[in-house]
Amino acid sequence: MAAAAQIGDDVLAAAEAVEHLALRGGKRMRAALIAAAYASCQKGASSHVDDDNTRWAGALLAMVAIELLQVYLLIHDDWMDDDEVRRGGPAVHVVLRNRLGTKRLGDVAAILAGDLACGYAQAALLETTLPAEHVLRAARAFAQIQQDVVKGQIAEMHSARRSCTPSTSPCTSVDATALPSVETIHSLKTASYTVTGPLVVGALLAGANDARVAELERFGRPLGIAFQLRDDLLGVFGNPALTGKPIWNDLRQGKRTALVDELRDDAAAQIELARVLGNANAQHGEIEALVHTMEASGARARVEARLQELLGEARRALGAMSFSWGTGDMARAWLSGATFALGERST
Amino acid sequence: MAAAAQIGDDVLAAAEAVEHLALRGGKRMRAALIAAAYASCQKGASSHVDDDNTRWAGALLAMVAIELLQVYLLIHDDWMDDDEVRRGGPAVHVVLRNRLGTKRLGDVAAILAGDLACGYAQAALLETTLPAEHVLRAARAFAQIQQDVVKGQIAEMHSARRSCTPSTSPCTSVDATALPSVETIHSLKTASYTVTGPLVVGALLAGANDARVAELERFGRPLGIAFQLRDDLLGVFGNPALTGKPIWNDLRQGKRTALVDELRDDAAAQIELARVLGNANAQHGEIEALVHTMEASGARARVEARLQELLGEARRALGAMSFSWGTGDMARAWLSGATFALGERST
Repeated sequence: MAAAAQIGDDVLAAAEAVEHLALRGGKRMRAALIAAAYASCQKGASSHVDDDNTRWAGALLAMVAIELLQVYLLIHDDWMDDDEVRRGGPAVHVVLRNRLGTKRLGDVAAILAGDLACGYAQAALLETTLPAEHVLRAARAFAQIQQDVVKGQIAEMHSARRSCTPSTSPCTSVDATALPSVETIHSLKTASYTVTGPLVVGALLAGANDARVAELERFGRPLGIAFQLRDDLLGVFGNPALTGKPIWNDLRQGKRTALVDELRDDAAAQIELARVLGNANAQHGEIEALVHTMEASGARARVEARLQELLGEARRALGAMSFSWGTGDMARAWLSGATFALGERST
Repeated sequence: MAAAAQIGDDVLAAAEAVEHLALRGGKRMRAALIAAAYASCQKGASSHVDDDNTRWAGALLAMVAIELLQVYLLIHDDWMDDDEVRRGGPAVHVVLRNRLGTKRLGDVAAILAGDLACGYAQAALLETTLPAEHVLRAARAFAQIQQDVVKGQIAEMHSARRSCTPSTSPCTSVDATALPSVETIHSLKTASYTVTGPLVVGALLAGANDARVAELERFGRPLGIAFQLRDDLLGVFGNPALTGKPIWNDLRQGKRTALVDELRDDAAAQIELARVLGNANAQHGEIEALVHTMEASGARARVEARLQELLGEARRALGAMSFSWGTGDMARAWLSGATFALGERST
């Protein structure tokens, strides 16, 4: 912040926009997963509760880094989706538009503020004072996360575009031909970025071997998809006061969520979808009717059932993991807590 | 590319847009500087010409990385500046707009393509197979470059904004109050990003100590500012066929270049500047008159003189460096070649 201020007010304003969004809420899930994996993979057991509570400290800068990566992606994402609210406050492009007076300048400044957050994220991770080989392997995993999440966003953006007519007019049909599947997008955007990636980063910082990384991936992948299914459910059935995001945005933006996918063989629902999906001006009543159909047709229940199936898969993978170096109970508690927090959350 | 294709056509299109821009020309200056610094800082002399020619091979992935970082920045930059041409072909937001049919989708896809290039850049650097400690230190320097260049872009964007009236109307005056100086912006955007940063990355990959890094910074900083002054000169007096960029864009976009700064005490020139600077629709004749004034008033000559002074400073810093491990002549030749290439270029 001091370095930014030295250059001038405008760079400081960008740095502050990054800081405010980073500190204004957020669930810190990804950071928590880095901490959990790092703590659970550390060699040498400890019988002191105090030690257990600070076992994650070596991973602190990586936890900061993943939160800054998230801020970078949120800033660009909110601009792309025209979302004006984030974490219960104005999105960064809105803050900067208000500061600078025009939409165009606000947009440009927001993209740059996102780029700045990305630079901060890299720097934070690389400052970690653990063995260089561990940090380097973790940084490689971090770079892979970054690629995966951007690819997932590209796939998602095009998926929304293809299932809708251009610009703001509503979708006429949900044509899934030649599109990556919803689970492929989820796997890139969320399984990698939100769950597997942070787990692997944490494990590598602790010097985990390839076998342990593979075990964490088997645990993290179903958990990540479950997390995204919960996101899809909360986007339609959640409480905006808890999620900090406007309700029904996914529908208005034409996102191809699991709920939408579940209605693909329901002709009546397709007519309702056509009115709402990707239509920024959809009427409240039209959306309510669609949401009712999602409930009444069993789509919601089927997504919830699939979610629970995936959580079960994650729990079995966790059960199959051996923690040979005596940290077993603590490690299992951390990771099992993560399973619950990601799958059953309401925010 | 194969990984991108697996996900779908749209991700492949983004990856291809990155690849095409990366391979379509570019001067590869930054990559060459990494190679020069790496080769000149390697321990152990070699008397074989063959060895000398491949001394830079260990730095290859870092060279790829800095070119990809450049592609990332160019993609975002061209979108910000509404530049439609880059490296003699269409800018990425133009390519993607044509593919996707609307300006908005092209803009969004271009920002994502830039973000993807950024991810590729990190990954490339971190795959370097040199001692982990060296790679890690180089990666930290790389993250610093990334922050500096973005801060420089933010400062530059605001600098152009404040010296002009909003939107596309021309500037009414060049008010430099409360702005970072042109040399501060140059120092961040170019001295760090284009010269000092790559030199330091190359040196750290070779395991250079802090003293050698400081020497390279003393050499690189004046060279970097000289490079940017050459850029300012080429933007007004260059040959678009050689630079690959449209002429006079800097003026139309209201960039506060060294040439513009040189006219600050010239009342008549201020009137001409007011007509042209930041005015996308400035008439050819008006621009020609301003360019003539830049020549006739001695502004061009003064910028050229300052440039030569900086090159002299860089050469003296190079002369003061000792190459104790017997690679002296070769190292000096690489770095002295860089001085000439950056300062005296016409492209």
